[in-house]
Parts: sequence; structure tokens; C-alpha cells
Amino acid sequence: MHELIAAIDLGSNSFRLQVGKIVNDQIYPLDGIKEPVRLAAGLTADKLLDAAALQRGFDALSRFNERLRGFPPEAVRAVATNTLRVAKNARVFLEQAEEVLGVPIEVISGREEARLIYVGVAHTLPEPHRQQLVVDIGGGSTELIIGKSFEPILLESLYMGCVGYSLNFFPGGRITREFLREAELAARSELQTIALPYREAGWEVAVGSSGSAKALIDVLEQNGWAEGAITVEGLERMRNALLRAGRLDRVKLVGLKDDRVPVILGGFSIMSAVFKEFGIERMVFSDGALRLGVLYDLLGRYHHHDLRDATVSAFVSRYGIDPRQATAVADTACHLLACLDPETADPDHPDHRFLRWAATLHEIGISVAHASYHKHSAYILGNADMPGFSRLDQSRLARIALGHRGKLARVASLPDESPDWLLIACLRLAFLLHRARDGRGVPPVSLARTSAGFAIRLERDWLDQRPLTAAALEDEQHQWLSVGRGLAVQVRDAGRATA
Amino acid sequence: MHELIAAIDLGSNSFRLQVGKIVNDQIYPLDGIKEPVRLAAGLTADKLLDAAALQRGFDALSRFNERLRGFPPEAVRAVATNTLRVAKNARVFLEQAEEVLGVPIEVISGREEARLIYVGVAHTLPEPHRQQLVVDIGGGSTELIIGKSFEPILLESLYMGCVGYSLNFFPGGRITREFLREAELAARSELQTIALPYREAGWEVAVGSSGSAKALIDVLEQNGWAEGAITVEGLERMRNALLRAGRLDRVKLVGLKDDRVPVILGGFSIMSAVFKEFGIERMVFSDGALRLGVLYDLLGRYHHHDLRDATVSAFVSRYGIDPRQATAVADTACHLLACLDPETADPDHPDHRFLRWAATLHEIGISVAHASYHKHSAYILGNADMPGFSRLDQSRLARIALGHRGKLARVASLPDESPDWLLIACLRLAFLLHRARDGRGVPPVSLARTSAGFAIRLERDWLDQRPLTAAALEDEQHQWLSVGRGLAVQVRDAGRATA
Repeated sequence: MHELIAAIDLGSNSFRLQVGKIVNDQIYPLDGIKEPVRLAAGLTADKLLDAAALQRGFDALSRFNERLRGFPPEAVRAVATNTLRVAKNARVFLEQAEEVLGVPIEVISGREEARLIYVGVAHTLPEPHRQQLVVDIGGGSTELIIGKSFEPILLESLYMGCVGYSLNFFPGGRITREFLREAELAARSELQTIALPYREAGWEVAVGSSGSAKALIDVLEQNGWAEGAITVEGLERMRNALLRAGRLDRVKLVGLKDDRVPVILGGFSIMSAVFKEFGIERMVFSDGALRLGVLYDLLGRYHHHDLRDATVSAFVSRYGIDPRQATAVADTACHLLACLDPETADPDHPDHRFLRWAATLHEIGISVAHASYHKHSAYILGNADMPGFSRLDQSRLARIALGHRGKLARVASLPDESPDWLLIACLRLAFLLHRARDGRGVPPVSLARTSAGFAIRLERDWLDQRPLTAAALEDEQHQWLSVGRGLAVQVRDAGRATA
Repeated sequence: MHELIAAIDLGSNSFRLQVGKIVNDQIYPLDGIKEPVRLAAGLTADKLLDAAALQRGFDALSRFNERLRGFPPEAVRAVATNTLRVAKNARVFLEQAEEVLGVPIEVISGREEARLIYVGVAHTLPEPHRQQLVVDIGGGSTELIIGKSFEPILLESLYMGCVGYSLNFFPGGRITREFLREAELAARSELQTIALPYREAGWEVAVGSSGSAKALIDVLEQNGWAEGAITVEGLERMRNALLRAGRLDRVKLVGLKDDRVPVILGGFSIMSAVFKEFGIERMVFSDGALRLGVLYDLLGRYHHHDLRDATVSAFVSRYGIDPRQATAVADTACHLLACLDPETADPDHPDHRFLRWAATLHEIGISVAHASYHKHSAYILGNADMPGFSRLDQSRLARIALGHRGKLARVASLPDESPDWLLIACLRLAFLLHRARDGRGVPPVSLARTSAGFAIRLERDWLDQRPLTAAALEDEQHQWLSVGRGLAVQVRDAGRATA
């Protein structure tokens, strides 16, 4: 157990680093760094990040890198949100960003972001047993969660944020009644699609958890427009002040920090829309947010409460996967992986975990259609809302599932040095060895590396009783040749091996 | 009700036309035409149909066209199976083929083929109440169904057929013990993946239903190797005769028709594999097959027992679609369509039916993920096993679902004259009008055509109470402009209209 862990949140408005200390299963936030990168503002109309935004991002990350020296890799997790979900050149940015930061960066889905925000907020609530509505207006997306204690009940992420709304609805920084109305209506249109189930579920306390909420509460409080909360009346008074200023550069509000000015109009409009569409009268603030959720999630993984295990189990039942077959294939696949690399025999080894998850879910696509189900498995694993999994995690699962049968050419674009080749080989062979679906355990086979690829080793007696397996292994050899790798089948005969 | 109906089956080995007469809910097969097109044999290694195969196909269809003169379009259904499922230039063939035939051709999925085969066989069985295993070895795929009375219990379609197996496993027409063994092992490998659930479900009677089964039974019977059935012993005696011949051109078996010779080795090998892998001892023959199933399916649609309605209902519950919202959107969408084209007010009008199905299922993708769920809806509708729907049907549903929200540019490739533009417009507007999910009925709006596109007409009072709907309609106008169409919003004020 590391005493210090760190979370990095590459948000659409700010990049943040948060260091936390673990004491008795609780995280005590230590120092944090905030960099107002405003990545979303650098997004062009055709959804490309411009050079200046990229540079602001790299500069921020290089400062984070300095603070992270001495942290072991497993004590740090970096997540990226909406702008990097939508930017077409996100990949280019991420590759260089990972080098600068020295830590892999995981782009997470909107709902995963919502879940992590709730985890963060839930750890700071004074009354977690009451049902909460949490609203997080970010730079590029807005998350709305209803939860109770540590369990989210409803999770949504809407594609609207304070950066885009500030830029698009207030041209030239002009503030008019009409502009405010249009921005608010646009936000209400988004909110309308989810409002009904939220109203039906209900809440006792409304909580704001983002920089926008913090800025609003600071302004309302320091101007004496509200006390300790955002209120309907406070927002009205702030609206009048904004209209009186008439232009962003003339807005001089006590309590409004300089770096918040460029995004305050969007944040204000979205918050007003939330109040109206959800009928909120009063909203308190929590400073538990995405990065605190990431820290608690990281802590959970140390304690073997990895949410991803729970998600995989839930998917097995939700998608009607045959658990007997899934377990048989997963056990054999992990056995073969341990033959190749004894370190991976540890069930906590990351490759072991991914292989087990992929093997457990490899048949998930049968829920769509039997024909070419491996393609449907890859689609679902790549696109489903999978709590705890980042997009990177999901694309890894999808790739392994896609390669588990049929043409290997489909995954040929995988880099030569990728560990996923091993995982795919193990899953393919396990799949092949369990084609009879007879529920038997791990068969007496082993796998070794060769200069050309892999060698599977079997007993002659065992294989002679299984002509179908022998025929399938022959086919499998052709598949590996097609991607320039060799699969040798070594049959052992009373201690002697023949190639 | 038409007295005569016709089914065309564009199989991988033969094209067949079957005319049937409807008498009291039963179909009496009248004349049939069979053309040994052997389309699958014209499939090159890179899955392109060669010119000779295309020409054989067109020639056959032009003969069918002659027989079909005088049939109203709704009395004819043409389906295509495996070779046209996999050929990369299938689209080119189908376009010209439809012109030659004068009837739309629907490519159906393997499982839909299996279902239709079972429907056909079930209507010819002497003892339909007993549980049946039906095996249909086609030119390009093999269907295996377990069913009882008219209900299929298990359905599978495997990608192996008598044409490919004959060509690939018996080079130069040579017949050796080794070649037969390899072909049989390959087929058993395919069968192995499905054998266990079939064995567990069990059957009382095994039935063969294809040209291959017919050829085998004829040979066994006329050579005195079996009586009224395919048997294990009969297959062994035929195997010995084939081995004695040693080459396809020396095979002279009593009862074997000339047009069957080129595909007998593949059909024999696959049937032997089925017998071994499923432990069958005796298999009878039924001449009810795909084309008879198509005829009964067509009859069902006349009688308002369209299986597609049942499938859509089943999907609503299986995928957890909110039925209240689905019904509200579907009712409004169909109301708008009827405004545009009064003929479509008839619930049996094909456009009405498609719009209702698409509207009922438009949220199906939420089962995968909320974000961009319309893309997931399109994926599921395009790929799922949907009994009763052809692939063409499914791609139409997928297209309408994809276009129901978000950017219209996504469906911009649709031809200008496609009726789907109307369906998409109706669904988009219905979706927009029901965004509040409040379960209200059809709102007081109507839709009209204009020279530029569409005009939606509403009452001022009604709209004034709904600022979000007004804002959403404004956005919607931009969307239609982006694909070169106009959407006018006409607000009526006590009888007067303003554009």
C-alpha cells in the first residue's frame, strides 16, 4: 500500500492534480495544482484542438510531472473528459501528453465521469444517507447524478459545458436578456430529455460540485445575494448585475476570480436552466469532485474492491452469457497466459485481469446475433456503459474479443510489441479447446514462446481422442501465419516432443 | 386476397420459383421452376461473384419474370441467402437482378433462413406435434432447427454448404479417404459449437429438407442401401461406392441426377458429419423448404399475423424500452406521416408499418449506452436477429433510427427520392415533440409538404406555453438546411398563418 496517491483530471476547462494521503481507508487531500488550460476553447468548428491549446496542455502536464516524481505508476491515475472525448486529434495530443506526464491517460465516458464525480462528492457529504442530486457543470459536459450514500441511482452526462456555452451564446462578450434566454433555453432543451425520471426519483438535497458552482456560490455570498448556497433569488440578482454590465469585460463582481470570468456566462446560464428545469430552490456546494472520485476508485482497486469485477459479473447476467462456458474459457486462457509468463499467474496482474474479463465476456455479442458474434461482442464492449472501465480499458477488451475467433487479420494493426497479442493467443486457444462446451476444466495443454511466435504442447493420447481439436489447431496455424507469426503444435509422446 | 402467390429463393446452388394457391389458409404448391445457377461456385477467393455467375443468375431470373407476369407485387416475395450475404459485389448483382425479375429481392440472415425453412417443413410434417430436428444443407450455408408443431425452439445457420465443400476439399474431383475425412472433420468442427444445446433439447424425428438430402435419399433408395430414409449404414455403403469411383467424373450412381453431381461430395461430407456429431441413425425427407416457408410467411402477412409485429413487441421488453414513450412517439410520428400522405393513415400501409416499428424501437440503443444512443440503435437494428425482417427491412429501420436525432448529415447519402426522408422527418419531429417524456398523446400539430421540404403547423397559444419546443424547432430548421431541405414552422394565430 502506498501512502500517497495522486489523481489527474484533464478537464475541458482546467487540468488538475490532486495528491491524497491514505489513512485508514480514508483519503486526506494534500496539495493540489490547478491549471486553467481551457482546452475546450481551443476546439475548432471541425473539432480539432488548435496548436495553442495543445501547448497549454503540455505545459500544465509538465508541471504536474515534476510533482509526481517518486510516485510509483500504480499510485497515479489520470483521466480525461469531454473535450478529449470529442476532439478528432485527441490521439495525437494524448500520445505526447502521456510522455510529458509520464503516466497513461484514460479518456472516460460521460457516465463514468458522472459515477466518479458522485464517488468523490459522496465522500464529502455531511448527510450521505439523504438522497442527493449532484450537478457538475464542467467545461465541456454537465453531469447529473441522483444517489444515496455511496450508491448512484441515476447517472447522466449531457454534452454542454461552460466553455462552449460562453463562447457560442455570447458573441463578442455581449450580455443581453435575449442571449441569456437563448443559452438558458438551449440548456433546458438538453435537460428536458432527462428531467422526468430525475423528478420521479426525487432528492432531499441538491449539491453543486464543479468550478462553476463554486464561482456562483462565491459571487452570491460575497455580494450578500445568498447565504451558503445558490438560490433562485440569488441567481436573479446576479442576472440583473450581469445585464447592467452589458459586456463581459465590464463585469466586475466581488468574489469572481479572473480565471473564471471567461466561462461565467455559460456556467450561469446552465445553472439557471438546471434550477428551472428541475425546480430547485437551493443548492449547496461540495468540493469533492472528479479527482477525489478517482482517488477513491484507486483506493478501492488496492483493496480488491475493483468495481470492474462487479461490472463484468453484472454483464454476464444482464446479457445472458453462459457462465459455465465463460468460466471454463477464462480459466484455460489464464492458465495458458501463466505458462507464457509466470508473473501473470497472480490474479492481480493487470494482464491476467484483462484476459479474465475479456474471456468472461467474449460471448456477449451473441445477445445481438449469432452470426459473427465476435464483432458484436467488440461493439458492445467498446461502446457500453461499463462502470469502472475507462475507454482505453474498453477498447482493449473489445480488441481481445474481436480477435478471439475468425480471421486474425482483423487485429493485424496491433503493434508488434503489444502484450495483447499474448492475450489474444491465449483466448483463441482456450476458445478452441472448449468448443464442445462440455463444461470440462482446464485441459492438459501448455503454451510456450518460440522465436516465431508460440508453441502449444499436448499429449498424443489426449489429442488422438479429439480429432476435431486437432483439425481446429491446424486451421489455427494458418491464421497465425496470415499475420506473420508461427503457432507450433508440439505433440508429446511418452516424454518425447515432435514439432 | 390473391389466390395465387409466389416465392423466389435465390439460393447458393439453385434459384427456385414456387407458385402456390391459397385455399382455406393452406397453400397448395402449383408449378415450380428450378435453375441450377450454382452462384456460390462463381465466388472468387476475394468474395466477388464472377461475370459468368452473374449472367447465369440474370438468365434464370428473366425466365422467372416471364412466369410472374400478372402477379401483383404484394403477391410475390423473393429472398436471397448465403452467397448474396457474403459476396462483396452483391449490391451490383441485386440491383440488376431486381430489374430483370421485376420484384424486390431481400437478402435474409442465416437465422431468418432457418426460421423460414422450419415454417416450410412444419407445414409438410406428418406428425408436427413430435419434436423435430430439421437439417437443411444448402449451397452456401447449413441450417439446423429444432422445433415442435409450428414453433422453432433452436435455430442456427452455419457458414458451410455443399458448393464450397465440394470445391475446396476435393481438388480436381479426386475422391480419397483422406479428403472425405478432412471435409467431414471441418464440418464437424462447425457443428461441434452448437451440438450440445441441440442434444440437450433432443428430438424424436430427424428431417432433411434440402436438395442435398433429397439427392442422398434418392441414391440410397435406388441402390437398395436404405429404405425411405438416410441411414448410417446407407451412408457407409455410399462412401465405399464413392471411394471405388475415386474421381468425380467416374461416379455413376443410380438415382444421382446430373445437375447434382458437382455438389454431391460436399453434401455427402456435411451430412456424414451431421450424423456423427448429432448421433443420428435415421433421417427422413421433407420437401417443404425455404420457398414454402416464404409462401406461408407471405400468407401470414395477409392475415395480419405479421411476425414482424411480434418481433418488435418482443424487442421492446427484451431491451427494456419504455413502452409509454415508444407508443407516444410512434402515434405522433404516424399522425404526421398521415398529414403528408393520407394513404399512409392505413395501418397496413408499408410506410406506416416501418415508421411505427422504427419509432417503437428508436430507443433500443440505450441498452448499450446513453451517449449517442441513436448510433447504437442503428447498430442493433442493423445486426440483431429479428425474426420476420429481411436484411433490407433491418437496414431501413436502422437508417430511420440513426436519423431520428442529432445531425441529419449522417443520413445525407439517402437518395433524394427515397420515402425514408419523410419517415425520418416524422420521427424526428415526433421525438422532439415528446422530449419531456410526459406520456401525453398526439399534440395539436400537423405537417405539410412545401416546395423546399416540409412545414410544421402549430397553434400560437400551444407553442407559447412551450418555449423549449420552440427552441428545439429552431435548431431543427438548421438541421434540415444542412441537408439542403427546408423545414418551415407555421404558427397559426386564431385562424391566420404566418411563416
